[in-house]
Amino acid sequence: MYEGVVQDLIDELGRLPGVGPKSAQRIAFHLLQADATDVRRLADVLVEVKAKVKFCSTCFNVSEEEQCRICRDPRRDPTVLCVVEEYKDVVAIERTREYRGRYHVLGGAISPLDGIGPDQLRIRELLQRLADGEVTEVILATDPNLEGEATATYITRMLKTLGLRVTRLASGLPVGGDLEYADEVTLGRAFAGRRSADD
Amino acid sequence: MYEGVVQDLIDELGRLPGVGPKSAQRIAFHLLQADATDVRRLADVLVEVKAKVKFCSTCFNVSEEEQCRICRDPRRDPTVLCVVEEYKDVVAIERTREYRGRYHVLGGAISPLDGIGPDQLRIRELLQRLADGEVTEVILATDPNLEGEATATYITRMLKTLGLRVTRLASGLPVGGDLEYADEVTLGRAFAGRRSADD
Repeated sequence: MYEGVVQDLIDELGRLPGVGPKSAQRIAFHLLQADATDVRRLADVLVEVKAKVKFCSTCFNVSEEEQCRICRDPRRDPTVLCVVEEYKDVVAIERTREYRGRYHVLGGAISPLDGIGPDQLRIRELLQRLADGEVTEVILATDPNLEGEATATYITRMLKTLGLRVTRLASGLPVGGDLEYADEVTLGRAFAGRRSADD
Repeated sequence: MYEGVVQDLIDELGRLPGVGPKSAQRIAFHLLQADATDVRRLADVLVEVKAKVKFCSTCFNVSEEEQCRICRDPRRDPTVLCVVEEYKDVVAIERTREYRGRYHVLGGAISPLDGIGPDQLRIRELLQRLADGEVTEVILATDPNLEGEATATYITRMLKTLGLRVTRLASGLPVGGDLEYADEVTLGRAFAGRRSADD
C-alpha cells in the first residue's frame, strides 16, 4: 500500500523480533519525520556492528577483538569457568560484580523441539578448554528452565570423569524464567549459594 | 555494560518509538547473529528512505517525486478534497477503495497541550488550494477524537465563507480511537454516510 521505499522500510523493520506490522509502520513514520542525521547514525551503527563485532575465539563472548575483554583481563581467575547460554547472560552476571572468573558461551541450550542438540552448542570447545587442567571449577549458569536444566545435566555427565568441581547456580532464581531477567541481588545470591551438580 | 558498538546499537534502537530497553537489547542480539547482508539491507533502506522520500508539494503526502502518485493521477476527481492528519490516514482511506478524490495532509491535529496550534498545521496551504474554486467539496477526515474534532471544527469555521460543501466522516467510526486502526468496512461505511459539518 505504501510507496516504494517506504514499504521496503516497513518490511525490513517488520522482520525484527518483537516488531509487528503496526509497530513497523509506526517506527517507519517516525523515521520519515526524524532528522536525517539521526537516521544516518542508526544506519551507520548497523553497518559498524556487523563489521566490528566478532565472537571471542576462546569463550565465544561478543568481542571487537580476537579475544574478549574478560578473556584478556589478567585479573580474572583462570581456575573458575562459568558456562552460560548466551552473551546477554554474561552481561547479566557481570552486572552483579560477584563473579571474578571467566566464561564459556554455549550459544543456546539443548532443545530437541527446535532441533538444537549438544552438537549445535559449543560443548566440544568447552571440553577442549578444560583439557589442560587449569580450570578447577565449572559453574553451570544455564537458564533455570527446561532447556537450561537439560543442558546442565548433559554437561555435568560429560564432565564427571574430569575430576572437576561442577556447580549449578543456587535456587533463588525463579524457576521457569530467563536468567537475564533476574535482578542483581537475586542473581548475586544464587552465585553465593551455588550447589554441587550431582545432588 | 555492553562493549562499545553493541551498546551504541542498543542506544540507537532504544530511541525508536515503542522500543524499550529490553526490546532494544533483544533486537540488537538478533542483529548480531543475523546475516550480514540482511543487516546491510536494513541499513541501506534507512539511508535510501531519507534520500528519496520527500513530501508532495501539493498535498504533503509522502512521495518519491515532486508530486505524489495521487496528485499526478488524472483519473482522481479534482473537485473533492479529503483532509487528513497524517500520511498513514491516506493509506488507510486508499485501502477502502471508496474514495476517488484527492487529499490534503495537515501534518497533525490541533493540540494545545502539545503546543500544536493551527499555524503548525498546513491549513494556510489548504486555503490556498481552495482559492481557485475547482474544489467543491471538502471532506474532513481527521481522527474521531478530541484533537481531530477540534481541528475539524476549526477548519469548518475557516471554510464557511467559501461556499463549499464541507463534510465530516459519518459516525460509525469508534469514538475516541485512531482513524488508522479502523477496519476497511467501517471506514468505507463512514465515507458513504458522511454528514454536513454544520450539524
